[in-house]
Amino acid sequence: MQEYVIGVDIGGTKIATGLISKEGKLKQKVVLPTFAARGLNASLNQVYKSISDLLEISKVGKQAIKGIGVCAPGPLDPIKGIVHNPPNLAGWREVPLVSLIRKKFGKKTKLENDANAAGMAEVIWGAAKGYKHVFYVTVSTGIGTAVIINGKIFHGKNGMAGEGGHVTIDYNAKHAKCNCGNTGCIEALAAGPYTVKRLLRHLKENPRIKTNLVDMVDGELDKITMVTLGEAAREGDAFAIQTIEEEGKLLGIWLGSMVSVLDPEIIVIGGGVSLIGNILFKEIKKSMHAHTINIFANKTPVVQAKLKRDVGIFGAASVLIK
Amino acid sequence: MQEYVIGVDIGGTKIATGLISKEGKLKQKVVLPTFAARGLNASLNQVYKSISDLLEISKVGKQAIKGIGVCAPGPLDPIKGIVHNPPNLAGWREVPLVSLIRKKFGKKTKLENDANAAGMAEVIWGAAKGYKHVFYVTVSTGIGTAVIINGKIFHGKNGMAGEGGHVTIDYNAKHAKCNCGNTGCIEALAAGPYTVKRLLRHLKENPRIKTNLVDMVDGELDKITMVTLGEAAREGDAFAIQTIEEEGKLLGIWLGSMVSVLDPEIIVIGGGVSLIGNILFKEIKKSMHAHTINIFANKTPVVQAKLKRDVGIFGAASVLIK
Repeated sequence: MQEYVIGVDIGGTKIATGLISKEGKLKQKVVLPTFAARGLNASLNQVYKSISDLLEISKVGKQAIKGIGVCAPGPLDPIKGIVHNPPNLAGWREVPLVSLIRKKFGKKTKLENDANAAGMAEVIWGAAKGYKHVFYVTVSTGIGTAVIINGKIFHGKNGMAGEGGHVTIDYNAKHAKCNCGNTGCIEALAAGPYTVKRLLRHLKENPRIKTNLVDMVDGELDKITMVTLGEAAREGDAFAIQTIEEEGKLLGIWLGSMVSVLDPEIIVIGGGVSLIGNILFKEIKKSMHAHTINIFANKTPVVQAKLKRDVGIFGAASVLIK
Repeated sequence: MQEYVIGVDIGGTKIATGLISKEGKLKQKVVLPTFAARGLNASLNQVYKSISDLLEISKVGKQAIKGIGVCAPGPLDPIKGIVHNPPNLAGWREVPLVSLIRKKFGKKTKLENDANAAGMAEVIWGAAKGYKHVFYVTVSTGIGTAVIINGKIFHGKNGMAGEGGHVTIDYNAKHAKCNCGNTGCIEALAAGPYTVKRLLRHLKENPRIKTNLVDMVDGELDKITMVTLGEAAREGDAFAIQTIEEEGKLLGIWLGSMVSVLDPEIIVIGGGVSLIGNILFKEIKKSMHAHTINIFANKTPVVQAKLKRDVGIFGAASVLIK
């Protein structure tokens, strides 16, 4: 009998739930709104419904389900299976999500935060397959990381390890206040929205900069995103390229520090911003090698994540495979 | 029969070799000059001689020796047992120290870098006894760290993990060039000599600062050390206290980042600078709690190392206990 794992990716807007085979094929998917603003019961019911709907639609018998992996926004405790108090899920406070789902569906259940889960999916099915010590990074609206040691997510004392996006590389940076309350976290310097903010600051300070970006958004500067930036760079726009290179330099400085501490076998970078590709990765590597004491850093691969679409579902499912 | 482990602490100036019981008692010690400037053969012979001398003096039969642990300045490969090319050991280049010592004395031999070894000694005999996930820090002329996971030193891909002293928290800091070639490493901001340098800069820029430090060294400012600074602070010298608090603040910013990544069960701080004690530790903790995303950081103990004298010998020996 073919065995499956259910992956539930709870986000602030939608819940994506999928049926995944051990080989990493997504067989069926259900997407429901989270109803986050309506409070705990409403959104919890959507979680349950997404799983029931999936089982019904896919017509896979319950006995073929090995278990249910869930990823949710942090802070959460993957060891105890408890969601603490995510800012984007109203009314969630110390919710024992694992025991609730296990009782409801009678299946082994595990909870993990988004970045850790995505990192694990890369180890099992993606770019880090075959590696034991992995540093996974996702760069999009924020920067999340996962520290994988001996093929397992490293959780630390309170299940809070792997928050590498909140390492500061510039503790004095007045322009880089982070959502976490600190200053100069790499997230607040190099995540997508912050990179766009830096770009807009440069444009404002130097209105004579030549760039197609302004035309690309019909002069509506607040419509510039990392996607616009990536497109412009690929078309050779010097200012866009320079902005991406600056982001790569910052990420490299930070990764150099991470390599000094963790000396990973491979670094995998995913998330929307990673799709920019070569222009970004080239600069990240150059800067990383220049900013670490690790004399072997230039032999440590820095690669793009392999899982792109539905990475949340794959991530959630992956924590049940190992 | 009582079993012993030999710990060999190779430094640039001296080699300290000791006989340590499993309970962590130093039974006998031999200290020889390294003769580092005379090249590989000369200093290697001193290593051998220190072990032979110890065996002879202590009159412990070779059969009672469980093995030989060696710690040396990095960079080195603890997995392969090779010393790469330490700047303070002339002529050492890819020296297979473990196999050389094992052949010479017929005993199980292990190699480790200083900070990792000292961290392990704290886990086995010191302040981190009973803890699995430990971040060890030694602050003296440099800043070394050890990442201990599941009770074992984490080595990473190339045996180079745990170089936390070379994490940058201020990549723009022109005044903080580090020996490793980078800028703004915590070592270059908060290790002993750099703290003294900062103090002298402040004194020069503000000659009216009231402090007893100048009198304590009879006006010879270049004689101010961290020891002078600690003494002055204990006597209530406001400028000395402020300088130490500033160092604590910097260490706390960095440790906050390390807690975000590693979420350790305990942080142990050793090395000469840690002897300053409470004034420093109070500020480290305050700053660490304020500079991490980890909501449980205020419950993570930050304690002084327990092993002080002969920590190098204990460290070297400890890697053979586990």
